[in-house]
Amino acid sequence: MSDPVLSSAMLSTDAIELVGMIAGGLTTLAYVPQVVKVWRSRSARDISLGMFLLMNAGILLWLVYGLLIGSPGLIAANGVTLGLTVAVLVAKLRFDRLPTAPVLAEPASDSV
Amino acid sequence: MSDPVLSSAMLSTDAIELVGMIAGGLTTLAYVPQVVKVWRSRSARDISLGMFLLMNAGILLWLVYGLLIGSPGLIAANGVTLGLTVAVLVAKLRFDRLPTAPVLAEPASDSV
Repeated sequence: MSDPVLSSAMLSTDAIELVGMIAGGLTTLAYVPQVVKVWRSRSARDISLGMFLLMNAGILLWLVYGLLIGSPGLIAANGVTLGLTVAVLVAKLRFDRLPTAPVLAEPASDSV
Repeated sequence: MSDPVLSSAMLSTDAIELVGMIAGGLTTLAYVPQVVKVWRSRSARDISLGMFLLMNAGILLWLVYGLLIGSPGLIAANGVTLGLTVAVLVAKLRFDRLPTAPVLAEPASDSV
């Protein structure tokens, strides 16, 4: 049941851990362009508040889990990720109060 | 260096693994409200394309990593997550071509 499905015999442990490290780097760095976008445009209406509430809670628990098992990799990745997901959440809470999105606003038809 | 920072002696291994499972559940489920939001509103302009390209690549690698180490938990969580992040990416690519966001469009000032 928990036997590796892919043939891990063909990859060294180092190579496998490298895959994990690249995966962790990507899923952490992914939030950077989202943070830049919402803070630059001052618009976050299409962002789901529910997503970022759940995501912040989840990342915080991953950080706690990393601390409990003493994993420097989990602690570092989730510490950085938490900073980024908090930045998106703050943007959402802040910019949704603005009447319009001033920077990236597009001309809208009055007939809608 | 890799000694647990929190006192894991106070928590059983089962309790620690429960924290990890809740964390994994939250960071997977978090995408559900985002998927519902963009497909309902047919608007994804505030969503970062860069975020979801990087996130899909990262989640795919987490899935590969789970297969390589034979972890049913990683495989299940990242399999479900990948389906959800692909759904957001497809919405982004599809709805950004629409001239306006018809459902949630708001009256915009002409004086921008």
